[in-house]
Amino acid sequence: VAHPSPALIVDLAAADRNIERAAATFRDGPVRLRPHFKAHKCTTLMRRQLDGGGCCGVTCATAWEARVLAEAGFDDVLVANEVADPAGLAHLTAAAALARVTVCVDDARHVELLAASGARLGLLVEIDVGQRRCGLRPDGEELLPLARMIAETSGLELRGLQGYHGHAVLLESRTEREQEAARTAEILAAERDFLLAAGLPCDVLSGGGTGTWDLPGVLTEVQAGSYVLMDASYGRLDLAFEQALFCRTTVVSRRGTRIVLDAGLKALSAEYGMPRGTEPGLEVLSLADEHATALVPEGCALQPGDTTLLIPAHVDPTVNLHPALYVDGEAWAVDGRTR
Amino acid sequence: VAHPSPALIVDLAAADRNIERAAATFRDGPVRLRPHFKAHKCTTLMRRQLDGGGCCGVTCATAWEARVLAEAGFDDVLVANEVADPAGLAHLTAAAALARVTVCVDDARHVELLAASGARLGLLVEIDVGQRRCGLRPDGEELLPLARMIAETSGLELRGLQGYHGHAVLLESRTEREQEAARTAEILAAERDFLLAAGLPCDVLSGGGTGTWDLPGVLTEVQAGSYVLMDASYGRLDLAFEQALFCRTTVVSRRGTRIVLDAGLKALSAEYGMPRGTEPGLEVLSLADEHATALVPEGCALQPGDTTLLIPAHVDPTVNLHPALYVDGEAWAVDGRTR
Repeated sequence: VAHPSPALIVDLAAADRNIERAAATFRDGPVRLRPHFKAHKCTTLMRRQLDGGGCCGVTCATAWEARVLAEAGFDDVLVANEVADPAGLAHLTAAAALARVTVCVDDARHVELLAASGARLGLLVEIDVGQRRCGLRPDGEELLPLARMIAETSGLELRGLQGYHGHAVLLESRTEREQEAARTAEILAAERDFLLAAGLPCDVLSGGGTGTWDLPGVLTEVQAGSYVLMDASYGRLDLAFEQALFCRTTVVSRRGTRIVLDAGLKALSAEYGMPRGTEPGLEVLSLADEHATALVPEGCALQPGDTTLLIPAHVDPTVNLHPALYVDGEAWAVDGRTR
Repeated sequence: VAHPSPALIVDLAAADRNIERAAATFRDGPVRLRPHFKAHKCTTLMRRQLDGGGCCGVTCATAWEARVLAEAGFDDVLVANEVADPAGLAHLTAAAALARVTVCVDDARHVELLAASGARLGLLVEIDVGQRRCGLRPDGEELLPLARMIAETSGLELRGLQGYHGHAVLLESRTEREQEAARTAEILAAERDFLLAAGLPCDVLSGGGTGTWDLPGVLTEVQAGSYVLMDASYGRLDLAFEQALFCRTTVVSRRGTRIVLDAGLKALSAEYGMPRGTEPGLEVLSLADEHATALVPEGCALQPGDTTLLIPAHVDPTVNLHPALYVDGEAWAVDGRTR
């Protein structure tokens, strides 16, 4: 059977080198890697990352992903978000019956909902370290009442804090990433000290991403995900990882130096800009639902029916558009995709 | 079982009114509606559109969709794009064994590939009427040699022309849409006359979209798709259709007037901007992979665990992110999604 077009292709040798580079840093501790499943949602690839070493478990974004991971045999799963919907709470309960599951909270309502689910869960209180999304304001005021509520709720165990500096991971300057990682580490350390001073536990400080993977500061674990496959956005940074993911697409039309490829918004996510070509001089101008329009140099030989590889701008939502990753001709299911 | 969150919800009464409004216009001919499957990829909903009346068949975007439609019993399917990859050609061949299938071409290479597939296919030559994507330049020069090649190829039948004015369908001014629809109709009429003068057939002139659904000009069939579910982008136009699609999402965090919802880029496509809230005063500020951040008025009662409905900015790539549409509590599979 021919591969579909467009299709996502993994360069497994490059992915393995990325896995080894991360493992070499984390293997001896004390900080561990907790690779983020949301980057690719493929349990086969995630197993390879854990087998590479240096990992303390898996991170994921949703309760559904936690269930998929637990059912696939992953035994230590962090949901790096708050869960507040009935279906999500049911998935979390199913996952917690199979694995050690930790989930984030930033509101008493979360604690009530999780307690009512009956699941045995570990909890991290999320602190907003500057991303301005979820999390408590880092002034300690809201933290202690919420932490005490968790400590007093049966079935729930306070494990520590999450502080994700998502606003810092894609800063192009290494110096700026270092500064922001240090600043957010200080915030998290202060919150940890509030907990410890109050006699409350705080074993885990979880955060970080691919752009700050080697700048853990006070973190006990790093949630990098994109490092294994990479994308054009992280490719602009000076990271130690190689591009390992490509979208193979077919030329469907050509007029002069203007070509049209069969990969559009249903195959490539556009919020971080256009995919990058690997064909010399190929520049993607725009994405429509099913098409990329690109310019090529006059001498470019591409004609309808030929294929070319693009580098996705943003790995996570791009892989989420595909049912499988193709690895040396084999299809690896993107089995954490919603179904 | 609880619905997933986020989930796409269809207001079936509103969708039925949209279907009836279109049917009332096309029922008496001579122009017919050929509704575009790519807008929602749900064969259950597409069957309802055809049952509504006024339709001459179905349009779709990919060979895979044509196969899904043919296998679901749709007997007249237009693939409104060029197909040039081996897997696509195989899907087209499978579809053509079950249904009357028409596909677009704009290059001799397409004719060679389609002829080699062995499938019995109808062909439309695509003309670039101003969208600057696929299609021949509208000067007649390339058209006649390509049309003659088709007419002389056994298994392939020249049925006419496609000219899609995708650059016109979302123009906010009705007058501008009218002008552009008229201008592109003239182009297509001239190309048709080239064919007829050369003794070549041209029964079909296919094109148009939801923004120009009632401006067919010379078209024999209109490829509107979004009209049945609508989205926030088409909602800004003065069309006769109602919003029938909503993304139900759960509040996962709140600090003051800033709330975070569990629907992000993996649930809502962002290339046409932010989704619109239905909660009074709710304004979506940004979408991340799994989150929408929004502002709400001070008096807004939404708290973690509560749900709210958003109107997607762009229906096609949004539905493509979901495995099902929820209709009166029932799940309708998005069965044309790549799998």
